[in-house]
Amino acid sequence: MKLSRNFLPTLREVPSDAVIVSHKLMLRAGMIRKLSNGLYTYLPIGLRSFRKVERIIREEMDAIGSLEFKPTVVVPGDLWKESGRWDSFGPDMLKARNRVDLDLVVSPTAEEAFTALIRDELASYRQLPLTVYQINTKYRDEIRPRYGVMRGREFTMKDAYSFNATPESLDATYHDMAGAYRRIFRRCGLSVLSVKADAGAMGGTGSEEFMVESTVGDNTLILCRSCDYAANVEKAACKGDWTEGKATAEKLATIDTPNVKTIEDLTAFLKTTPRAFIKTLIYRAVNVELDLSSAPGCAALKKTSSSPEAPATYAEALFAVCIRGDLDVNETKLAAVLKAREVSLASDSDVERITGAPVGFAGPVGLVSAPVVADESAMHIHDAVTGALKLDVHYTHVEPGRDFTPWMTTDVRTVKAGDRCPVCGGEFYEKKGNELGHIFKLGYKYTKSMHVSYLDENGKATVPLMGCYGIGVDRTLASAIEEHHDDDGIIWPMSLAPFQVAIVPVKFDGEMKEAALRIHDELERLGVEVLLDDRDERPGVKFKDIDLIGIPVRIVVGSKNLPANVELKLRNEKDARLVPVAEAAGEAKRIVDAALAALDALEALDAESSPPTGR
Amino acid sequence: MKLSRNFLPTLREVPSDAVIVSHKLMLRAGMIRKLSNGLYTYLPIGLRSFRKVERIIREEMDAIGSLEFKPTVVVPGDLWKESGRWDSFGPDMLKARNRVDLDLVVSPTAEEAFTALIRDELASYRQLPLTVYQINTKYRDEIRPRYGVMRGREFTMKDAYSFNATPESLDATYHDMAGAYRRIFRRCGLSVLSVKADAGAMGGTGSEEFMVESTVGDNTLILCRSCDYAANVEKAACKGDWTEGKATAEKLATIDTPNVKTIEDLTAFLKTTPRAFIKTLIYRAVNVELDLSSAPGCAALKKTSSSPEAPATYAEALFAVCIRGDLDVNETKLAAVLKAREVSLASDSDVERITGAPVGFAGPVGLVSAPVVADESAMHIHDAVTGALKLDVHYTHVEPGRDFTPWMTTDVRTVKAGDRCPVCGGEFYEKKGNELGHIFKLGYKYTKSMHVSYLDENGKATVPLMGCYGIGVDRTLASAIEEHHDDDGIIWPMSLAPFQVAIVPVKFDGEMKEAALRIHDELERLGVEVLLDDRDERPGVKFKDIDLIGIPVRIVVGSKNLPANVELKLRNEKDARLVPVAEAAGEAKRIVDAALAALDALEALDAESSPPTGR
Repeated sequence: MKLSRNFLPTLREVPSDAVIVSHKLMLRAGMIRKLSNGLYTYLPIGLRSFRKVERIIREEMDAIGSLEFKPTVVVPGDLWKESGRWDSFGPDMLKARNRVDLDLVVSPTAEEAFTALIRDELASYRQLPLTVYQINTKYRDEIRPRYGVMRGREFTMKDAYSFNATPESLDATYHDMAGAYRRIFRRCGLSVLSVKADAGAMGGTGSEEFMVESTVGDNTLILCRSCDYAANVEKAACKGDWTEGKATAEKLATIDTPNVKTIEDLTAFLKTTPRAFIKTLIYRAVNVELDLSSAPGCAALKKTSSSPEAPATYAEALFAVCIRGDLDVNETKLAAVLKAREVSLASDSDVERITGAPVGFAGPVGLVSAPVVADESAMHIHDAVTGALKLDVHYTHVEPGRDFTPWMTTDVRTVKAGDRCPVCGGEFYEKKGNELGHIFKLGYKYTKSMHVSYLDENGKATVPLMGCYGIGVDRTLASAIEEHHDDDGIIWPMSLAPFQVAIVPVKFDGEMKEAALRIHDELERLGVEVLLDDRDERPGVKFKDIDLIGIPVRIVVGSKNLPANVELKLRNEKDARLVPVAEAAGEAKRIVDAALAALDALEALDAESSPPTGR
Repeated sequence: MKLSRNFLPTLREVPSDAVIVSHKLMLRAGMIRKLSNGLYTYLPIGLRSFRKVERIIREEMDAIGSLEFKPTVVVPGDLWKESGRWDSFGPDMLKARNRVDLDLVVSPTAEEAFTALIRDELASYRQLPLTVYQINTKYRDEIRPRYGVMRGREFTMKDAYSFNATPESLDATYHDMAGAYRRIFRRCGLSVLSVKADAGAMGGTGSEEFMVESTVGDNTLILCRSCDYAANVEKAACKGDWTEGKATAEKLATIDTPNVKTIEDLTAFLKTTPRAFIKTLIYRAVNVELDLSSAPGCAALKKTSSSPEAPATYAEALFAVCIRGDLDVNETKLAAVLKAREVSLASDSDVERITGAPVGFAGPVGLVSAPVVADESAMHIHDAVTGALKLDVHYTHVEPGRDFTPWMTTDVRTVKAGDRCPVCGGEFYEKKGNELGHIFKLGYKYTKSMHVSYLDENGKATVPLMGCYGIGVDRTLASAIEEHHDDDGIIWPMSLAPFQVAIVPVKFDGEMKEAALRIHDELERLGVEVLLDDRDERPGVKFKDIDLIGIPVRIVVGSKNLPANVELKLRNEKDARLVPVAEAAGEAKRIVDAALAALDALEALDAESSPPTGR
């Protein structure tokens, strides 16, 4: 294709609102333009690479027997009321009401749409396992859209859903999917980390995230220096780091602590360390599914449901969460433990109501107006200090188990660099990462709430298990740029390059024009995607643009080397070499094929180590 | 592909809510399923054909130099306020408000999004002409969605927009686009009628619709028996059919007409015909752009604008529309003439206010409280009868021009079968049709309201012209089924078939299984899309399904003909023939290639007769 026939508005200046490399380069290379906050239009050259990501994903999904569907982007709100997510999904969901007051949703994900479809079509165990997918537009109303298409409001997602008869079958599909994901990312030239994840608003058990490292990543990853343990901080666990010791013989005592405001003040005042302190925080949890019927202070609470199909929850409940003084509570872990949609620190007035004292004197001893949720760490302190539910008073000589018994003991601590791996005891370090893909075992969450069933071998109605599996297409594309670029621009992996070869005549005139056209036509005949820079620009401008948009192979046609030779240079190498004009197209074709084969070889290598597929 | 690995829920029963053939067959063949009113999910086999329509459209767009973009589906409402369509588009537009109270629109079309994009990127005349397109999701909140994907709420549209420096350049792009459209529909096996159309809410001048005939079509088409004149009734004109005659010498007179309610009563009472009667209807028009500053009865009206950028309009105005008694007013033509968003018959109280009499006695003579808009037909009657603006009184001996002078004389009649062609005088007949594609010359409508400009050869800021060009993908697919089916199911044109060849072993076992697999693998090697029915079903069930889903070539593998032969049958022919097993794949491949070549040959034929492209 001739460049003059394309639309390639490259920019010399770095756009002012772009922070990360991929956002800057996608704008500068003329791949995208901003329409509004979090809404980007792909221009032709950006769309070419975008479609290549889609194609790789589609090929790998098809290869594991997943079937492509196309549900609508706008779906009825009723489906979401049935699953219970109409209320629980939160403000990321864009709702609209049509001319006849029908509630509609611009799909943020499609568990509901696919579950409803399969519910109507599934009759027999013979139809299982069944894995379906789409590659389609999604909308999530990010509160702070940023980093270009890396975190936009509208985006394209491949979302797959499996329906399985048995946990073993779900395991097999999950395993196939994980393999397909690894092949997809490798074919896109991406290094991904696979980490254990919290399943978040998606619900369910067992999940894995595919992350790329990024200094501006939304996720904190916890990694072990000694083994391959990797987890999102929202899910990470660590080995207990309890201080050995014995229970004190001293009885529980109170101590006046006037003007002692912080843990630092307190430890200085008592000449002890934060590790001896039981920190107690009052949390407000919303839409709690956990049974609280016998929990302290919860007798008056009643479960309600927004619709007959949605799971019943307590609209709101307060909890006293205890943790060792040097540690922090991870709210995502806490919400998961409480099966709550969301948790946040309670208001001062709620704290006063629950503890009977101003903020700063909460403690588990004698607390009866809310359930006490203790992190394991709080239960392994001896001779501890904690608030005494009274202004300017603390308890000392506290023995967990003797002086208080929590309603629940669990793991809600925020794991940090320096903590120890629960698998091998190695030291943890942290990285920031962006999530490109996510696979979950959903279990019965949607199939139960939406009443899906099939007849098993014995003719008995049975509820299938479900899994769901997503990849962000835009984010995968942007991440490839994050991983492959230099100061001059993008360095595309051959698999994603908008064009594989660029031909740059020093001047598009005379013998240079003739040779350039000849090589161009020959490459098109060979099925190579070629861009011919036929503009009337200085050679320096053309070279800069071709480097910026990252074409892997560049052929420069100059009168200096003609009529014998042209110059061939790879984007990821420094030096050019001369190639006879008649051999230029063939040589470029060999380079393209070899690069693609190398990416496929990685894939093959990976495929070999995989057991057979789930279906 | 093996059928057991696909998802093909065929239905024996005709679904109760399906009226038209394509809707019934798409449901029965397992191509689509209903998610909600006007919202359909494509299942795998439906999606395969859908993607083929998309691909054909994409190839033909690319061939005329149109460039593919991908704007978002959700766009900011501000863009629509700028163009003025936030208010004028009407309730088909789905609006939403996000978490920070930003107005958003689920795109019903994309003039605004593309105009805004090009506005920012267009600098010089050297960039023109520029034609951009997308194939993307659209949503229009149809008040009565019906006929499956033929008239759904969410659908996929190819929409292209051209930006041109001169009317001649716009003509050339428009001509290229019309040629591409003809090739697209022919490659899809569709017979389309190209008709003149009203531009409707899209605005602008000069447009053409591509229609397929359909008994349940939304459009009435007016066609000439003697020439190729074809127009939508919303735009059609006809030759004047005036009764020759002379002006009467009699003076205007009144006549009492007690208990005369209808034109029939009146013509019986006066012993005349409806052709002698000047029918006068009071219309209410909304958002009128036409200048009414000197129009009778309009002195108090003021133009207002919903935004600084939107064109100013009169919110509402009343008009007295006169037409010959045997004819009807076409409201779309009337709205176009008045540059109004919408017109409808005025309320009884408005009629009484304007005419000073109850409904039934309106007439143009002496009417001063509203502008009189006369259809040409009303001005060619002599010695006419009309209402006298008084209960139970009519005027006789009315001479248009003598006894009244309309504010405007124009063409607002509904053209019908039997009327005469304005080009050749031939007789008109009518057809019902569905619109598959639509091309318009928009002129300056959006480029002016949204302030697009470029620097011309002399460095002068100049506003470009625009054209817009749409095709409904879903509707094109459904129309191919409407045109190609029989009582047993779909008969796909080779270009759109989900699979080109089906292999049906009478039993998937022993030598039949072996031969079926051998032919299947050979066809896949040859690049033919093949579906192998490996189900454990009776042969009759398999044959019925393969016929229903419309696979063009069927190979039956039965022990009766083995080991020598298999049976090969085309979906659109009655008889099968025997083919040696070893030659079956090659023969099927030849048939597929020949069928595709035949569709391409039609295309080539058409291309030859086209002048060079616009760019």
